[in-house]
Amino acid sequence: MKKKFLIKVEFYDVDSMGVTWHGNYVRFTESARCKFLQEIGYTYTDMKNDGYSYPVVRMDFKFVNPSFFDDDLEVEVSLDDYETFLSFSYKIKNPKTNKIICLAHTKQVAISISDFSTCYVLPDEIINKIKENT
Amino acid sequence: MKKKFLIKVEFYDVDSMGVTWHGNYVRFTESARCKFLQEIGYTYTDMKNDGYSYPVVRMDFKFVNPSFFDDDLEVEVSLDDYETFLSFSYKIKNPKTNKIICLAHTKQVAISISDFSTCYVLPDEIINKIKENT
Amino acid sequence: MKKKFLIKVEFYDVDSMGVTWHGNYVRFTESARCKFLQEIGYTYTDMKNDGYSYPVVRMDFKFVNPSFFDDDLEVEVSLDDYETFLSFSYKIKNPKTNKIICLAHTKQVAISISDFSTCYVLPDEIINKIKENT
Amino acid sequence: MKKKFLIKVEFYDVDSMGVTWHGNYVRFTESARCKFLQEIGYTYTDMKNDGYSYPVVRMDFKFVNPSFFDDDLEVEVSLDDYETFLSFSYKIKNPKTNKIICLAHTKQVAISISDFSTCYVLPDEIINKIKENT
Repeated sequence: MKKKFLIKVEFYDVDSMGVTWHGNYVRFTESARCKFLQEIGYTYTDMKNDGYSYPVVRMDFKFVNPSFFDDDLEVEVSLDDYETFLSFSYKIKNPKTNKIICLAHTKQVAISISDFSTCYVLPDEIINKIKENT
Repeated sequence: MKKKFLIKVEFYDVDSMGVTWHGNYVRFTESARCKFLQEIGYTYTDMKNDGYSYPVVRMDFKFVNPSFFDDDLEVEVSLDDYETFLSFSYKIKNPKTNKIICLAHTKQVAISISDFSTCYVLPDEIINKIKENT
Repeated sequence: MKKKFLIKVEFYDVDSMGVTWHGNYVRFTESARCKFLQEIGYTYTDMKNDGYSYPVVRMDFKFVNPSFFDDDLEVEVSLDDYETFLSFSYKIKNPKTNKIICLAHTKQVAISISDFSTCYVLPDEIINKIKENT
Repeated sequence: MKKKFLIKVEFYDVDSMGVTWHGNYVRFTESARCKFLQEIGYTYTDMKNDGYSYPVVRMDFKFVNPSFFDDDLEVEVSLDDYETFLSFSYKIKNPKTNKIICLAHTKQVAISISDFSTCYVLPDEIINKIKENT
């Protein structure tokens, strides 16, 4: 299941070499992931209300081409897995030039907020929402 | 009462014009303010344990000279007032060139975490700590 | 002259007290200011091509109400002056609750990139664009 | 070759779950990497003066334990390779508890600033400096 979102590269995103500072792509992927979860009806707020937080436990990024101030970037988010990990992959491209800018993956686990224990499988609440909406 | 702290300008602090992005000085002043409060023995953690948060309600910054990647900056923090507002002023300079980089002020109020009400005067806990340690 | 833009509060914008960290409003105002300048046809890229940079030399912020994760905020940008300073004011509100969140001002000067000298009046290029488009 | 540097978790580093926001570890690794390069006598400024930039082309992070406001973290930086890529690994731990917080890797290539071409091997300037100082 894939969804696409647009991100604007702002002035404050760009480093002294004139390109988007690599760490800012973590923000871009989080922004797109939150919108993805919102569209399937299970937001970070729902997570909290259900008693879980979903910290990112792994992330990797491959930077293929630079992006620049004022670029509109398309972030394609794919939900790859939702058993032990909530696993997403991301393809960020510049839709004007069709160039790939960045490829990324994140993995999240569910933590029970009451006792900070890690869930060995994701909670039913999120799995059911995903199955209903994807 | 004044205290001085050093801050290093990192690569990620610098914008595409080659100078520290102006919004990052908010981080520099917060970092120095937290160290100031720690030295007088009343940290953000103590605030929370005593049932208060201290949101910034006003801030102003005057940018006098640019700073650059790898600069060591000296942040001089002064506690100006602690009745209704916890008021600090900041003088940021480059100790090598002795140039003033930035002048700033912040004002914080105390909020009771239990009911989100604003305190009309600062709580005794912080006032006593300040009087003991300044 | 006033223009309104929408900003989404992201997960990474929120601090440990559950509210938008105050320094992030500097990003929100810059993002809205860049869109404002783009709509009147004079972008940061035009500034650079004309040989000028426009550093922020003053900013002040008054935080009236907190904002929260996933809030959509409306940033109303007004161009107040364009003689010595390019002066903007900002009114950030939550359009759902109609509450004022933040009021801010910024002042920018024009710097000639060739010799880093400050212009005593703003360059004709930007003044003409503003007069044509406001 | 390994070097260790200390990082302080600031208030603005912490997210609404009360832990360091995962994207901030990108800043921590960059800060430590710059200090590492400075200690072997080849800074980002030297890179620029020699005509090269060294963009990060890959990064991966494994988050093992959370860190909290005011934690002092130790970042151990290892230079793993310097042929095609400038490859570093990072072990971030809390020296008080001895817990591992984060493990990370970055890879950088050299880009010639004059024509934006990628160097197939790293420039002699950096290789010689590394051999002299490690």
